[in-house]
Amino acid sequence: MNRESFAGVYPPIATPFDAAGELRLDWLRENVERWNLAGLTGLVVLGSNGEFPYLDEDERDAVVAAVLERSRPGLQIVVGTGRESTRATVRATKRAAELGAHAAIVVNPHYYTGQMTEPVLEAHYQAVADDSPIPVLLYNVPPNTGVNLSAGLVARLASHPNVAGVKDTSANIVQIADIVRLAPPDFVTLAGSASFLLASLAVGAKGGILAVANLAPDECVELVRLFTAGQIAEARRLQQRLLPINAAVTTRFGAAGLKVAMELRGYRGGYPRRPLLPLGDDARAEIERIMRAAELGPA
Amino acid sequence: MNRESFAGVYPPIATPFDAAGELRLDWLRENVERWNLAGLTGLVVLGSNGEFPYLDEDERDAVVAAVLERSRPGLQIVVGTGRESTRATVRATKRAAELGAHAAIVVNPHYYTGQMTEPVLEAHYQAVADDSPIPVLLYNVPPNTGVNLSAGLVARLASHPNVAGVKDTSANIVQIADIVRLAPPDFVTLAGSASFLLASLAVGAKGGILAVANLAPDECVELVRLFTAGQIAEARRLQQRLLPINAAVTTRFGAAGLKVAMELRGYRGGYPRRPLLPLGDDARAEIERIMRAAELGPA
Amino acid sequence: MNRESFAGVYPPIATPFDAAGELRLDWLRENVERWNLAGLTGLVVLGSNGEFPYLDEDERDAVVAAVLERSRPGLQIVVGTGRESTRATVRATKRAAELGAHAAIVVNPHYYTGQMTEPVLEAHYQAVADDSPIPVLLYNVPPNTGVNLSAGLVARLASHPNVAGVKDTSANIVQIADIVRLAPPDFVTLAGSASFLLASLAVGAKGGILAVANLAPDECVELVRLFTAGQIAEARRLQQRLLPINAAVTTRFGAAGLKVAMELRGYRGGYPRRPLLPLGDDARAEIERIMRAAELGPA
Amino acid sequence: MNRESFAGVYPPIATPFDAAGELRLDWLRENVERWNLAGLTGLVVLGSNGEFPYLDEDERDAVVAAVLERSRPGLQIVVGTGRESTRATVRATKRAAELGAHAAIVVNPHYYTGQMTEPVLEAHYQAVADDSPIPVLLYNVPPNTGVNLSAGLVARLASHPNVAGVKDTSANIVQIADIVRLAPPDFVTLAGSASFLLASLAVGAKGGILAVANLAPDECVELVRLFTAGQIAEARRLQQRLLPINAAVTTRFGAAGLKVAMELRGYRGGYPRRPLLPLGDDARAEIERIMRAAELGPA
Repeated sequence: MNRESFAGVYPPIATPFDAAGELRLDWLRENVERWNLAGLTGLVVLGSNGEFPYLDEDERDAVVAAVLERSRPGLQIVVGTGRESTRATVRATKRAAELGAHAAIVVNPHYYTGQMTEPVLEAHYQAVADDSPIPVLLYNVPPNTGVNLSAGLVARLASHPNVAGVKDTSANIVQIADIVRLAPPDFVTLAGSASFLLASLAVGAKGGILAVANLAPDECVELVRLFTAGQIAEARRLQQRLLPINAAVTTRFGAAGLKVAMELRGYRGGYPRRPLLPLGDDARAEIERIMRAAELGPA
Repeated sequence: MNRESFAGVYPPIATPFDAAGELRLDWLRENVERWNLAGLTGLVVLGSNGEFPYLDEDERDAVVAAVLERSRPGLQIVVGTGRESTRATVRATKRAAELGAHAAIVVNPHYYTGQMTEPVLEAHYQAVADDSPIPVLLYNVPPNTGVNLSAGLVARLASHPNVAGVKDTSANIVQIADIVRLAPPDFVTLAGSASFLLASLAVGAKGGILAVANLAPDECVELVRLFTAGQIAEARRLQQRLLPINAAVTTRFGAAGLKVAMELRGYRGGYPRRPLLPLGDDARAEIERIMRAAELGPA
Repeated sequence: MNRESFAGVYPPIATPFDAAGELRLDWLRENVERWNLAGLTGLVVLGSNGEFPYLDEDERDAVVAAVLERSRPGLQIVVGTGRESTRATVRATKRAAELGAHAAIVVNPHYYTGQMTEPVLEAHYQAVADDSPIPVLLYNVPPNTGVNLSAGLVARLASHPNVAGVKDTSANIVQIADIVRLAPPDFVTLAGSASFLLASLAVGAKGGILAVANLAPDECVELVRLFTAGQIAEARRLQQRLLPINAAVTTRFGAAGLKVAMELRGYRGGYPRRPLLPLGDDARAEIERIMRAAELGPA
Repeated sequence: MNRESFAGVYPPIATPFDAAGELRLDWLRENVERWNLAGLTGLVVLGSNGEFPYLDEDERDAVVAAVLERSRPGLQIVVGTGRESTRATVRATKRAAELGAHAAIVVNPHYYTGQMTEPVLEAHYQAVADDSPIPVLLYNVPPNTGVNLSAGLVARLASHPNVAGVKDTSANIVQIADIVRLAPPDFVTLAGSASFLLASLAVGAKGGILAVANLAPDECVELVRLFTAGQIAEARRLQQRLLPINAAVTTRFGAAGLKVAMELRGYRGGYPRRPLLPLGDDARAEIERIMRAAELGPA
């Protein structure tokens, strides 16, 4: 495994549904063809922003197949395969590999929040990494799971030859710095949200898996380029432009907001699936205003 | 629907696995035959204590069928059918009804924690209650979901003719009192843990769905009887006996602890499924000590 | 020390200020004369509801002196003396004793939240109890302090001959039940808010220190009487009446709300001291509406 | 007011006590003389790391006077003056100015956590800034206060001509980036802990008030210099060296740990004041080990 091939920027791609909640693979294919044109490292399929918990297993297969079929050669297709039980996670990971995925990104089990101790999580990930035919990325998303993967745990798992990196959505910049400090140099630490991308790069992250990259992939890639080129002040200005839209499409309005913002830039967002409800007019107007202020008009 | 037929005590039944993680329906049937002998109102199948997130759909069907087949007539068989999407929840609820379940208990969707606003949750539960062929119990379990069903929301849902009651595991006794105050008089508010059963009865709850009732069903039923008979001091003594073992089989040691305690009382606990790990010797000894102190020896 | 002399109902009395923020001892004295007429066990002076952090040391002395001078013989006058350092807490406790207070109620230090481990808190309270000339009540108020005094810690401190009881405002009914279970039988566990008074009595509390008792002392005393007489259904109805007004004068509107509600019942509430701001008209109207609904008109 | 004169690195200086808890101004003076030699912008006196809640008002005056007397000309002496009431905060701020302090750093009131709404906090700080004879720095320390000063609130207060900057200890790097984005360009945003100093500089902070600067002032100043010079990789290596010792002297071991680490580098730490307890031998050995690993031997 070449861990560093996973460095860079990815959108955790949205899954388009129509107003009746039906999966629209045609819209998804359109989006993939546009993402093919940006300087992305890859696409994350069936992540949180892809509403994976709302898809059946056969729908998940169809989504992965559609993305693999349309994405340009060279893009890393990383598929979300975390389930609650270890056996179901292993099974989903093997299935993703069978379909042709290049890596799996594995959210930790979390329903029994209080029982998800470090030994439990470590044994789970070791088992998954042992059995996975493809490289594994850890996925830490405490706002959704109520569980945190500590820097110490991530660093221990980073010594497994089949664990390539981590997406950390905690916004805990000290934890991200500690992961970089404790993990092997080629381990790929990825910011989990565009709002702390620049800060994460500063402490040693190698890219990000960013909801905003669904609608502004070029801007996210450019931010990384500016940082790498030592143009910190310019990177900071771009970071500031992305802050309000990032908040709108994640914590404030979630997948429903992300889809509205995608439509405003000419992508196919469609509707969220229930229980998520589509945004009302006020929220839509607010997102439009935020995007204009950020100079993120129709791309 | 006769809401009050759901008042009383239920165990949220454990699902036995062997050391390899395989489902043991034979062990489950043995347990059901013993629970048949206690004065329980019913059995809750595929609840949190039943490790429902770790079972496949076909295993879930097999568990429900086994319980329905062996449980004595008159027991309310209540099946957990909450899923992340509204459509999957409706589908699972209809399936439980087809199999013969008497009611469904529906945990709220929760992965997108921050998006689970009251309008989202209310529309979700309305849709499920509208489409369910059997009565629905709400299931509020913030320690696992990170979401709380407020008293106001529960009371609004309580006006739906197909919503019979709520299991509240929040341990928030003010919220439980508020639900009783705001919901219709025949609405069935059930304590979600034996540790606050007496307090819940005092403020107007009509029973409980209690992990401890897996191993001490008679004691739980007796506590309700003592309270109802006005024997508060005796009820309090029994409540105090149940406090340490309740903590051990829920927050402290979870499903693994529950299964050890069941074995100590002659039930078939078996092993938890991974990622949950079986308890070590120290924890087992601690549970044994707690049970002896509570005079909960082999039943 | 006769611990049980501290059982019963207390208001944590409000401290009246005028619109300019000046202390109004005359208004305080009027209130004390009305509280003298209710069946209260005592008055808690310089508690959280008394805005003690906003008073200078000389104002605190004046408040204590005014209450001691006007309160009827037999009322337990319990003074808040918790400070951040151990030495300042001891000094304030001795001062309260000098002024004539019958007991001290001691909130735990909390500024260094993360450092307030059980050994730190235990050593602190032991030192205070050792040096106090008067009985000490522990005061657990996690919503304000961010620190919880666990049942285990309270039970260990309860063995000190100079620790008479605890006010627990955590609303954690399992913790309250555990304190009763673990502490000596004569230890006085007091509910910290009227919203969980009935539940606390059910699990063995012996009364409460209740913001609502500032304006509805007779109703609070009556609730305890009904419970003790075994009239649980009547106690529950009274508990339900108190729930909304309790929320209004504590979590929702704080001291500003408490003072408005007191004025509506003919007590002298006055204004809160800044930074707290007086309520606007909408909040006042809401409190008036809640009190009418609870049949708590002018007393 | 020249806001930018407050940019740079400050230690929030420890207050030395002897084993009996007595204030040792002589030890404090020794420390000041060493801090005079580093490239610090100033010293923060009576901050959280200075155990200000454990000092009486006359001790506070003595500490401020000692620091002002011994510190070299040009150092900004910033004094903590936040109190719970607005009037006491104004009084303490005027007193600090009288003694000769160059600025005040004002922690928000927080005891009535739930009542500390944005309007309450905004009115409080406006009143303090209006009445203060010296520039005011806001101080956001949610781990201690349970209250957060949002970026929006800080930005509104930043328009006051007497508010020079903010120390943000939240570790919320998105919030720090938002403050920089929303506040005037000359507003001074300071990292509240060395663990996120580099990340804060990346998003636009202008320095930090850093516990670690008590014992490693040169290293902290050097980190800022490296960042400003565009030597990001070198800055990152220095940041990594500071991470473990920063954790040890803040969240893990608090003021007691800070004092041990100071002694190891030849400063006068002394003992914490009770209720804080001195560290045991294991914790001391752990700190020694961490410092050796970070190449922070005797300075």
